Amino acid sequence: MKIIKDGNITSPKGFLASGIYAGIKRTEKPDLSIIYSEQEATAAGVFTINKVKAPPVILTQRYIKKGIARAIVVNSGNANACTGKQGMIDAEEMAELTAKALSIKKGEVYVSSTGVIGEPLPMEKIRASIGKAVEALSAIGGDMAAAGIMTTDTFPKKIAVRGMVGGKMITVGGIAKGSGMIHPKMATMLAFITTDAVLDKRTLSGALKRAVDKSFNRITVDGDTSTNDMAICLANGMAGNNSLKGKELEFFQEMLDFVCYTLGRMIVKDGEGATKLVEIKVKGAKNIKDAEKVGFAVANSNLVKTALFAADPNWGRIMAAIGYSGAAICEEKIAIFFDKTKFVNNGIGRGKDIEQKVAEVMRQKEYTITIDLNSGDAEANILTSDLTYDYVKINVAYRS
Amino acid sequence: MKIIKDGNITSPKGFLASGIYAGIKRTEKPDLSIIYSEQEATAAGVFTINKVKAPPVILTQRYIKKGIARAIVVNSGNANACTGKQGMIDAEEMAELTAKALSIKKGEVYVSSTGVIGEPLPMEKIRASIGKAVEALSAIGGDMAAAGIMTTDTFPKKIAVRGMVGGKMITVGGIAKGSGMIHPKMATMLAFITTDAVLDKRTLSGALKRAVDKSFNRITVDGDTSTNDMAICLANGMAGNNSLKGKELEFFQEMLDFVCYTLGRMIVKDGEGATKLVEIKVKGAKNIKDAEKVGFAVANSNLVKTALFAADPNWGRIMAAIGYSGAAICEEKIAIFFDKTKFVNNGIGRGKDIEQKVAEVMRQKEYTITIDLNSGDAEANILTSDLTYDYVKINVAYRS
Repeated sequence: MKIIKDGNITSPKGFLASGIYAGIKRTEKPDLSIIYSEQEATAAGVFTINKVKAPPVILTQRYIKKGIARAIVVNSGNANACTGKQGMIDAEEMAELTAKALSIKKGEVYVSSTGVIGEPLPMEKIRASIGKAVEALSAIGGDMAAAGIMTTDTFPKKIAVRGMVGGKMITVGGIAKGSGMIHPKMATMLAFITTDAVLDKRTLSGALKRAVDKSFNRITVDGDTSTNDMAICLANGMAGNNSLKGKELEFFQEMLDFVCYTLGRMIVKDGEGATKLVEIKVKGAKNIKDAEKVGFAVANSNLVKTALFAADPNWGRIMAAIGYSGAAICEEKIAIFFDKTKFVNNGIGRGKDIEQKVAEVMRQKEYTITIDLNSGDAEANILTSDLTYDYVKINVAYRS
Repeated sequence: MKIIKDGNITSPKGFLASGIYAGIKRTEKPDLSIIYSEQEATAAGVFTINKVKAPPVILTQRYIKKGIARAIVVNSGNANACTGKQGMIDAEEMAELTAKALSIKKGEVYVSSTGVIGEPLPMEKIRASIGKAVEALSAIGGDMAAAGIMTTDTFPKKIAVRGMVGGKMITVGGIAKGSGMIHPKMATMLAFITTDAVLDKRTLSGALKRAVDKSFNRITVDGDTSTNDMAICLANGMAGNNSLKGKELEFFQEMLDFVCYTLGRMIVKDGEGATKLVEIKVKGAKNIKDAEKVGFAVANSNLVKTALFAADPNWGRIMAAIGYSGAAICEEKIAIFFDKTKFVNNGIGRGKDIEQKVAEVMRQKEYTITIDLNSGDAEANILTSDLTYDYVKINVAYRS
């Protein structure tokens, strides 16, 4: 598997994309993106489990049942969430306008929105712009599409990899947006993945679910989960490979996993106000659920996250979070490592000398905290960021 | 029921208290408190459910089984948590030293600690100071005791009420400490309540549990729960009332509820960096669990809490939190009020005019957000505060 330099969703064969400014955002930055496949693509998706679902999510979930798509239209700046019946009418119109401009079927255009909740979509602006976004489609348009889905993101998130599978070169590319409200279960996170591999619907769905579970569902910025999240994968088959099985399918899974994991890392790294990217590795748990409980309790604790920001080796806050996680733990068995430095042994800190070493680890921009519960074999890795003045600043300023 | 001006734990008959500086805190502020009852008192307690329990919690849980106590010794500045076997030895020694100085039994002295986790108690300082704290005991010492249990609190928390029950004047007083890490299930929150009522162990335990469930277990500052929380109530019977039943017991419960609720409000008001005290009232839920899920999801959401700080009427963030709370909800039925102003109707915002009214409500220091799920009869009220720059600042600075 090879990473494609500056690769993205237009790296796989037969995908065009665009991102233009439609006037939805207050500042003149791209806010309307289209992703288009020259041929019919197999489609799979994973969606927010928030019970308050935005109309575009509900619509796309309905369309994707068929499993065949040609395009995705995405706007940023407005989530079209909590917008009632009008919100659904608007989402359907977005699909319809895009389908008409592309001369394809309405049900083969998926719709996605991100931004402020509770305000109606500015449909006049969208009506005036979809034609332009279609005209702007190009085989090097992936970067613009990545820019067009950003909200408080400070950098676009994109990646592509390629590899030989079954005698054919297969490419997998992706773009994503994240920032605030990132939490497991697909929280205000959009990811669009394209591949030219030939895959049937069932295989693609399974592969996407596995990849999402190990990436987007294992990241957290502030513990909030959103109304609008989705990860969609389109596979247009233009690589012409034979049906993937066994080792070949595993290799495709590795590529998809890598794309999702890399996008997930980028999202956490760009968490609102974040200055640190910390991987919480939980091992020795009785079962995966417990490993996840501990990981998320630590990763979501505001007290832990402010300590990460301060590079303060306050292991007691980690112990407290492990204790209230709800997992079956034995305090006296717990070991905690910062990168390779063992800081807590049998539930007790190893003193001031070690603390200085740990403080050094914590001054890095990226590091790993390993929590060994020594109570079983299950593991889970969670990516998190720190809680900073800027997190508060960004979320106080947003909207106003 | 009458609120006693400047009342606290020494307001009920027969209770003495003190708070002195033992040198545990870095700044010269009281850090060692003793509460003492002149007669044997019935005792009840509620403790943290964090699985990582500090040795003083474990010790006090053991002692309280007997249900009779004479004193409580509390230190701040060091939580004696995650301190292993030495931590338990130190907690026992604290009880023993206090018992000796008071000429009472070791098992009738409860021990409580709050502060930094993971550092051994400075026992030399404590050994040198317990005698002084006993000497300082006085019938007007409740204020000093309240000061002695503070950590990052900016003001002491205390209250007392009195009322005629069964022909006798009964007084209930309390002190508490809170600030960071306040969350339901008794998180880094200490509360000590005294009363001169005659009560048997079983009645007192039941009454305390009910009061705690409606107060300390319904408040949240940052969603973290601690290793050290406890609420202890001592009833020394010096009011000489007859056994309380029916209406009289209800009246006692009201007094106890009021003391706990008032202390709980003070704790949230003094949440680290908090500038707002907001009551989240959830009604129309299918059951209490759902009402609590919704209340805590909203009350703990960093996105909601930054919006409270900004006085930004961003109801979408509330809807998103309701959606991911895990409760059974129907988006189209939800109504949200800010004080008496209805802002969301059938799951949709009522527009810019109302938004300005809501912004006015949000500029107050205290207000109520009522969420009506319109799906049943169950209710729950949760107290929360806002997330501010100062929260981050305090938690970055603490310890270093």
